[in-house]
Amino acid sequence: MITLSGNRGFESDNCAPVHPRVMAALEAANRGHVPGYGYDPVTAEADCLFDRLFGRHVEVFYTFNGTGSNAAALAHLVRPHHGIVCADTSHINAAETCAPERIAGGKLLTVPSADGKVTPAQLEGILGGWQSEHVPKPAVLSLTQVTDEGMVYAPEELRALTDAAHRHGMVVHMDGARLANAVAANRGDLAGSTAGVDVLGFGGTKNGMMFGEAVVFLKTELAEEFAYTRKSCGQLPSKARYIAAQFIALLEDGLWLELAGNANRMARQLYRRMGGLPWFRTPYEPQANELFAHVDERIKWKLCEAFPFQHFGPEPGISRFVTSFDTEEADIDRFLACAEELYRQRG
Amino acid sequence: MITLSGNRGFESDNCAPVHPRVMAALEAANRGHVPGYGYDPVTAEADCLFDRLFGRHVEVFYTFNGTGSNAAALAHLVRPHHGIVCADTSHINAAETCAPERIAGGKLLTVPSADGKVTPAQLEGILGGWQSEHVPKPAVLSLTQVTDEGMVYAPEELRALTDAAHRHGMVVHMDGARLANAVAANRGDLAGSTAGVDVLGFGGTKNGMMFGEAVVFLKTELAEEFAYTRKSCGQLPSKARYIAAQFIALLEDGLWLELAGNANRMARQLYRRMGGLPWFRTPYEPQANELFAHVDERIKWKLCEAFPFQHFGPEPGISRFVTSFDTEEADIDRFLACAEELYRQRG
Amino acid sequence: MITLSGNRGFESDNCAPVHPRVMAALEAANRGHVPGYGYDPVTAEADCLFDRLFGRHVEVFYTFNGTGSNAAALAHLVRPHHGIVCADTSHINAAETCAPERIAGGKLLTVPSADGKVTPAQLEGILGGWQSEHVPKPAVLSLTQVTDEGMVYAPEELRALTDAAHRHGMVVHMDGARLANAVAANRGDLAGSTAGVDVLGFGGTKNGMMFGEAVVFLKTELAEEFAYTRKSCGQLPSKARYIAAQFIALLEDGLWLELAGNANRMARQLYRRMGGLPWFRTPYEPQANELFAHVDERIKWKLCEAFPFQHFGPEPGISRFVTSFDTEEADIDRFLACAEELYRQRG
Amino acid sequence: MITLSGNRGFESDNCAPVHPRVMAALEAANRGHVPGYGYDPVTAEADCLFDRLFGRHVEVFYTFNGTGSNAAALAHLVRPHHGIVCADTSHINAAETCAPERIAGGKLLTVPSADGKVTPAQLEGILGGWQSEHVPKPAVLSLTQVTDEGMVYAPEELRALTDAAHRHGMVVHMDGARLANAVAANRGDLAGSTAGVDVLGFGGTKNGMMFGEAVVFLKTELAEEFAYTRKSCGQLPSKARYIAAQFIALLEDGLWLELAGNANRMARQLYRRMGGLPWFRTPYEPQANELFAHVDERIKWKLCEAFPFQHFGPEPGISRFVTSFDTEEADIDRFLACAEELYRQRG
Repeated sequence: MITLSGNRGFESDNCAPVHPRVMAALEAANRGHVPGYGYDPVTAEADCLFDRLFGRHVEVFYTFNGTGSNAAALAHLVRPHHGIVCADTSHINAAETCAPERIAGGKLLTVPSADGKVTPAQLEGILGGWQSEHVPKPAVLSLTQVTDEGMVYAPEELRALTDAAHRHGMVVHMDGARLANAVAANRGDLAGSTAGVDVLGFGGTKNGMMFGEAVVFLKTELAEEFAYTRKSCGQLPSKARYIAAQFIALLEDGLWLELAGNANRMARQLYRRMGGLPWFRTPYEPQANELFAHVDERIKWKLCEAFPFQHFGPEPGISRFVTSFDTEEADIDRFLACAEELYRQRG
Repeated sequence: MITLSGNRGFESDNCAPVHPRVMAALEAANRGHVPGYGYDPVTAEADCLFDRLFGRHVEVFYTFNGTGSNAAALAHLVRPHHGIVCADTSHINAAETCAPERIAGGKLLTVPSADGKVTPAQLEGILGGWQSEHVPKPAVLSLTQVTDEGMVYAPEELRALTDAAHRHGMVVHMDGARLANAVAANRGDLAGSTAGVDVLGFGGTKNGMMFGEAVVFLKTELAEEFAYTRKSCGQLPSKARYIAAQFIALLEDGLWLELAGNANRMARQLYRRMGGLPWFRTPYEPQANELFAHVDERIKWKLCEAFPFQHFGPEPGISRFVTSFDTEEADIDRFLACAEELYRQRG
Repeated sequence: MITLSGNRGFESDNCAPVHPRVMAALEAANRGHVPGYGYDPVTAEADCLFDRLFGRHVEVFYTFNGTGSNAAALAHLVRPHHGIVCADTSHINAAETCAPERIAGGKLLTVPSADGKVTPAQLEGILGGWQSEHVPKPAVLSLTQVTDEGMVYAPEELRALTDAAHRHGMVVHMDGARLANAVAANRGDLAGSTAGVDVLGFGGTKNGMMFGEAVVFLKTELAEEFAYTRKSCGQLPSKARYIAAQFIALLEDGLWLELAGNANRMARQLYRRMGGLPWFRTPYEPQANELFAHVDERIKWKLCEAFPFQHFGPEPGISRFVTSFDTEEADIDRFLACAEELYRQRG
Repeated sequence: MITLSGNRGFESDNCAPVHPRVMAALEAANRGHVPGYGYDPVTAEADCLFDRLFGRHVEVFYTFNGTGSNAAALAHLVRPHHGIVCADTSHINAAETCAPERIAGGKLLTVPSADGKVTPAQLEGILGGWQSEHVPKPAVLSLTQVTDEGMVYAPEELRALTDAAHRHGMVVHMDGARLANAVAANRGDLAGSTAGVDVLGFGGTKNGMMFGEAVVFLKTELAEEFAYTRKSCGQLPSKARYIAAQFIALLEDGLWLELAGNANRMARQLYRRMGGLPWFRTPYEPQANELFAHVDERIKWKLCEAFPFQHFGPEPGISRFVTSFDTEEADIDRFLACAEELYRQRG
């Protein structure tokens, strides 16, 4: 028997298990034969829930994972001579091993960003630069909400940015692998958290699902032929009902925001409780479910062994702590107790 | 409540649900936090089971689906100026919407094949053709086991073909989306059913899993850097334990062959029972879990509405019937009774 | 000193040198500094000549070579999930080493064709086949005029085909590496020889130029952003005046048709004079500048050493003879005399 | 008649015409039929000259242009999951419109560089960063000699850098579009100017040729299958003798260094003569044939109209002046006189 009983750490929200209600939905969907590839009643139901969520008709395509969702969406929006404006710290540039270049094509035109956000001035800087056939035509703006550095675009901030992009004829893509956490941070304002976004990657895996994301075309006319693109990118699920069922569990009673809200709350709590402890230094208050903190080097590595966390972020030497839908106050207690104990024993 | 209670038809083995023991394994794996991306104990356990299955060390990489598994494997084996020899009826050529060209690169060099098999003579024909920098260099032979037309390579037949490929310095890839059915057809002879294969797509989804395939490097040295390739092809699962757990369920007690064996048996039974009924004509005995039959045009479409099946195969106008791990004799009874009733009522 | 004084053979029209008037134009253009990349007065002049040639405004982009011209044009017309319908014997499928797949993307959907032509029935056959997200969407029809087998589409024949394509919303591309020979064969009817073509590769290299082709957008609105595509395909000439100057030489006084006309005439003459000689068998009358003939095996290889020709064509064992702008009757005399002499000496 | 008689400006060395001896070589090669695609005696002769130039056997492949040469060379060296380390200001990153991404694949891993050089510390910085399947594997170092900012790697400097790359198992590519100018700057030291380079783009177009570059494999074993790569990248010249003939003209009597030497000398002279003139400010002494200077804003645009130059470089607001093989002292006289006159007339 494999043992799966270590501490609940802070390495990533994809280290977490599947939420029980999501698992129950998978069980419930596991009856009988249905057509594959999304032509089943479970998928139809999930599609309806997305329409209801956005308050209007949106075109939804389920995919397997975040990298695939991003690559397929971008693949549909760019031609190979186009540029995709994004933060240098964005997931598509910094953590997807050429998947956008390989599958989507085009070139990432990066702007430097410690917090993962693109500013309107940076966008205008690129658009105001030399434009000719000798350089890629900037055609897509790709934003990340929540950014990989844990920052959240506020509605008005996002609107200013996407308005600028649209004025220049660009299409706006959003990598929403942690969109739920952003919406929770923006007090449930989904419309504001996706203001001006044309094509949205709606994350599921990091928010209690087993696998599965959704590419949501808010500008529905862009969805034409996307079924082909998804398939040719290797992202068409055959037993599609099992992704749809999970999204139904998340969306039908607001579970998605409840789970993201818990993760965000736990990150803020971790931040508050680290305050004043000399073995932690937390330069930024978390906006969503990612906290960045400097950990005293004398305890850092042993602490990380007991309660895993990662070692990158907006400052050199900083560590990243990600809370999850299932993080509990008791996890924070245990973690802080361990840190204190290690600090006492330090060399 | 969504109703999922229609007849069990014969449309595809991916219309079937998830086997209860696979579902139980998913439940069992759903405890605690573990590292993502395959660095978890469940994945380690599944890897061991693959080693045991093949009786030696193999390199295993889990992926989401068949098209992705094929694209990633081929991507690793070809350079963009290479040719991939395959049957024109193979899944990679006929049912993957440019995914191999888009993700893997190179060019599919197809040979005509009604049954989905490549013959040594066809392979030699391509290799004996004009070879120069003006045409792709044939570098990979990609075979399908079971073929999309339901045929199974026997061990000696496969050996002759892969030997020929190796003599010419080619690498052999096998699309094994239905490998279990081939092994069951070859009386459990896994080694024979994959004789001379260098890189194998080991199917799970069509054999009772929810999602997940495995790219298995039988020639382990070819696996170098494949972790990068998988990621850049969008096929790296973050919560990897949930694919591994399913494979454990299939492999640890021989469930994979039991399920495939049932599907094969049901296809043979369907074939036997169609014999003598004037409203069916079955030119080929099924070798695995796909039966091809001509259905009297006067009952075909109504029958298909009640018990779905598809309309393609090695002869024009023929229909395809796929049995699944969960097909029961009672399903065949009901299906045949319905056909007989429709035939009686024919215009 | 390198010796360049062998016999004028029939290997290919790209074995021929550069026409003296083309060379003179290169000399004439070789004065002073001008802007690069086509923003020079020579290129402007060539553009005007193309407009005059077609009797209306066309968008012209000069490229280096035929493979590059095809790849760039197709790259602009297809998305990676699209299919390009073409003959299996077309240059893009049979002699470009994955360049279309690599640079343009999409998948070549080939129809069998011994003479290199696509028929309306073949096109309808593909379009009437299974259409779904599981197979590429047929979006482009790519024709070759003259085909690689030496056949010429007559205007009405071409019109029927391109009309069918347009009815299905497809775009029509023409590989016109030997377009001049087709127009000469069609009695100077350029409009008819390109009837219904949206984007045309206009050949130069095989018709007396040193290098250089032109991608001509007859449907001008498709040219949008093609300057980017050309550059990203590596086909933007920096010293563009030297391609433009060559086209000026060809186009300003009808030299292009004169040269192609000579080549065609010489092919017909070779055909006529082979008639009745027992060591040749010529199943097809040449339509342009490619003649296919069976050569007596006892003299074939020695003859080919003295007067090179190639060994492929619409029948097994047949040889291909290509005449050029500079082929003279005396070349045919010498070739036939050599053949006769070899036949006398045969073993 | 098209007028080509403006001033000789400083816009780019590809605005210059073709050197008379190169043109004469094209004329001399223009006799008779020879095999295409490089199987001709002129190409064989050029290959020998490259061997003699490097003092050992090198594998040479002629291509059309610089972007194509870079894309084809990189295409051969990278797999799609690899990273190519280069300066952010390098031509492949800043002026090739996604051609490397589109044709070669992989991802450009850029380091900030005002002068176009990569430093060993920057290379080590990338290699010492996070290495995993989640980020591209750095496999190729691509250097530019002369850089687009006019800087030249000295032999020892280059050696340190390429040694570091080789220690990490990387392959070294050099974009030598202006290699001749670098060698001239390094006092004719070709070996030193390419120290540790595995695959070299040897420029011709910017040094008096009409078109044509050469991909030179100094590490000859890397050339395997490159003939296929070149073809599939659209860079195989059919009438290859006309590129080879130009290289023969450049290489057989040292013309290549003579021409580059003149361009370098003229750049230094322009620099010296700008010194002390208050309407110019020249922060850097030119190392090769590119001079960067601030021009008084009151005369800049009118001066640029009369004697074209460009507006980018290592400092904001700076202008770039490129001298050519045919730049003469009289051109500098006229240019400076014009500047002085414009300054006198300033508002």
